Amino acid sequence: MAAALLPSTDARMHSPLGFACLCFVAIAVAPTRAAEGTPAPSNVGNAAYPRIAADGRVTFRMKAPNAKQVKLEGGAGLVKEAVDMARDESGTWSVTTPPAVPGFHYYWFLVDGLRVNDPASYSWFGWGRETGGIDVPEPGVDFYAARHDIPQGAVRAQWYRSKITGQWRRAFVYTPPGYDDSRARYPVLYLQHGAGENERGWVEQGRANFILDNLIAAGQARPMILVVDTGYAVHAGNVDGTGTNRSAATAAYESVMLQELIPLIDGKYRTKKTREHRAMAGLSMGSGQTLNITLRHLDTFAWIGAMSGAPRQGFEVATAYDGAFRDVAAFNKKVKLLWFGAGTAEERVHASTVAVHEALERAGIRNVFYSSPGTDHEWQTWRRSLHDFAPRLFR
Amino acid sequence: MAAALLPSTDARMHSPLGFACLCFVAIAVAPTRAAEGTPAPSNVGNAAYPRIAADGRVTFRMKAPNAKQVKLEGGAGLVKEAVDMARDESGTWSVTTPPAVPGFHYYWFLVDGLRVNDPASYSWFGWGRETGGIDVPEPGVDFYAARHDIPQGAVRAQWYRSKITGQWRRAFVYTPPGYDDSRARYPVLYLQHGAGENERGWVEQGRANFILDNLIAAGQARPMILVVDTGYAVHAGNVDGTGTNRSAATAAYESVMLQELIPLIDGKYRTKKTREHRAMAGLSMGSGQTLNITLRHLDTFAWIGAMSGAPRQGFEVATAYDGAFRDVAAFNKKVKLLWFGAGTAEERVHASTVAVHEALERAGIRNVFYSSPGTDHEWQTWRRSLHDFAPRLFR
Repeated sequence: MAAALLPSTDARMHSPLGFACLCFVAIAVAPTRAAEGTPAPSNVGNAAYPRIAADGRVTFRMKAPNAKQVKLEGGAGLVKEAVDMARDESGTWSVTTPPAVPGFHYYWFLVDGLRVNDPASYSWFGWGRETGGIDVPEPGVDFYAARHDIPQGAVRAQWYRSKITGQWRRAFVYTPPGYDDSRARYPVLYLQHGAGENERGWVEQGRANFILDNLIAAGQARPMILVVDTGYAVHAGNVDGTGTNRSAATAAYESVMLQELIPLIDGKYRTKKTREHRAMAGLSMGSGQTLNITLRHLDTFAWIGAMSGAPRQGFEVATAYDGAFRDVAAFNKKVKLLWFGAGTAEERVHASTVAVHEALERAGIRNVFYSSPGTDHEWQTWRRSLHDFAPRLFR
Repeated sequence: MAAALLPSTDARMHSPLGFACLCFVAIAVAPTRAAEGTPAPSNVGNAAYPRIAADGRVTFRMKAPNAKQVKLEGGAGLVKEAVDMARDESGTWSVTTPPAVPGFHYYWFLVDGLRVNDPASYSWFGWGRETGGIDVPEPGVDFYAARHDIPQGAVRAQWYRSKITGQWRRAFVYTPPGYDDSRARYPVLYLQHGAGENERGWVEQGRANFILDNLIAAGQARPMILVVDTGYAVHAGNVDGTGTNRSAATAAYESVMLQELIPLIDGKYRTKKTREHRAMAGLSMGSGQTLNITLRHLDTFAWIGAMSGAPRQGFEVATAYDGAFRDVAAFNKKVKLLWFGAGTAEERVHASTVAVHEALERAGIRNVFYSSPGTDHEWQTWRRSLHDFAPRLFR
């Protein structure tokens, strides 16, 4: 019999002592109704659902006895659109999806139209809010797995006060294995999340630290420092009133990065401080930020990665990014890597990325294109992108 | 006019390109309805609600046009029991609480009986699930504030594979200012969360890193390493079937801590490895774990802190903890600090803690009692507890 550990709210409500009743009770799941598969690795505690079957189908459950309608909605590799869940006599709603694309998918329930996270899921920051998620394993693939038989880097929270935004910010900084025990200096990769996400994305959803640990242990990537900050940054004093669109919400990021973040990292960590040892990449919105910042500051960056976010329209090699590509020979000499990537299932992004890649190639601008088979505008594309991108850096 | 940045789900649903529509749109809040106060510091982005008034009243809002009833429920210092929210013509529900006790409170909405987090709140891990929270400032109190004018320690995620549980675990490790630049060795405080929480609690809710930064900068606490792990640990192979109560859910923790965590920390970090340089403390469930582990392993620990979790019944000095207190002189010589604390608003916990403190004192066992005025079984009690406890350590 499967059982889930859930706190008993009822018990708490009937007790004068909150803490005495933050107790765990067994929620029995009738064996006859148990779906096949195993609990998702992203479940809270030992919650029995969601469960993932061997073929990638996922079964979700949610208790909502008073609801009239419950739907499952989430990432495109999980469900293309909201799907109805079925109610049993106890008020538990469930649905089994078709085989999901491997990787991490955001998901949530629509309970009579209200978006509700699955209490059995940890939450990740996506869609501009805390959102449930499920990580569907990819058979035979372990490049983003945590491994105990190799040296591990460390991920630190690095808080800093930004004068430009007038607010505290938190970056996560990965230092590679051996960092603590050496006096060596390391190159740095700055890596940006997508719209609606934040600085947690690349570690929590992307597992970037494990990807780098594994690549470094295999000798496939140079040891490097990784910095993930939030790409949102509003100029101080511009919070109310005008900070109401993406443009304003990210307007200060370039200044924060160039004037505050990079000096902070170069001051606090043992970095190599020249452009040849500094890379920037990002996904989706972060790809746009990367291209906008790096191509206008080639004295600061020599390695550039654009994941699922090449320009989609109006791209002209001659005029793009203030003419960054105009002098082809100079560009090719100065830029060590210009990398583009996209998943085949994010068809329009993929097509526009190929178009930019080919236009640049025709113009003689050296660049690389990586295609992730079968994955959509989701984290499996970006995990694979980092896995392709990082080994090319700092050579 | 106040405005909140929220992602537009509608836009996303009508577009073939998910990422193109993870865009931010302005949600106007009619000026005539704006509640007094300022957005809570724990709000997502620049969400306008919840708002905290100068006197500590908090106004919550939630859009749920299809709901028949919405209530606010949360920590005892915020609301004693679930309170009704009122619906306006647009389907937005709101309520203003009486002045809240300062500090961090978990909260959630009951939407037709279903527990739902506020999308405007980040989530914290409490009540065995991701839960919304609000941090109500305490006027004139800044001992847990992030400060940019003092040196900051670092908090690292330290993953490790436990053979005892057969699972990956993640501890957070705070290293004090100066750690990276010195070769010095430091004493270690192991600090445990309460039931239904996890290793995130002491940093995210408790702000333990900022408390230590501030104490160390003021010369009030010795520089120390802080380790926060989850107190939940189930023996490998015992996940299904019998892992259904708190006792089983924490049964392996003592072994994990003594056999795996402490050796890991002593191996990876520059620690002082003797009992005189090792402390353990915890709150509520973690207080019980602390007393159970330390009093039976005085060869490992010399400093002990029990926050809001002294034994509540059947405590006999002579027999408690396998007779740890029997030899009074030996105990007083060996144990450098035995610390108890509780908040006055958690009345039964406070009373039982005082009773244990006094029984030990009568028996000649040297110990300290700290009382947190006006706070309940919530994080403000434990922030203050750490602020009182940490300066006494490693003297």
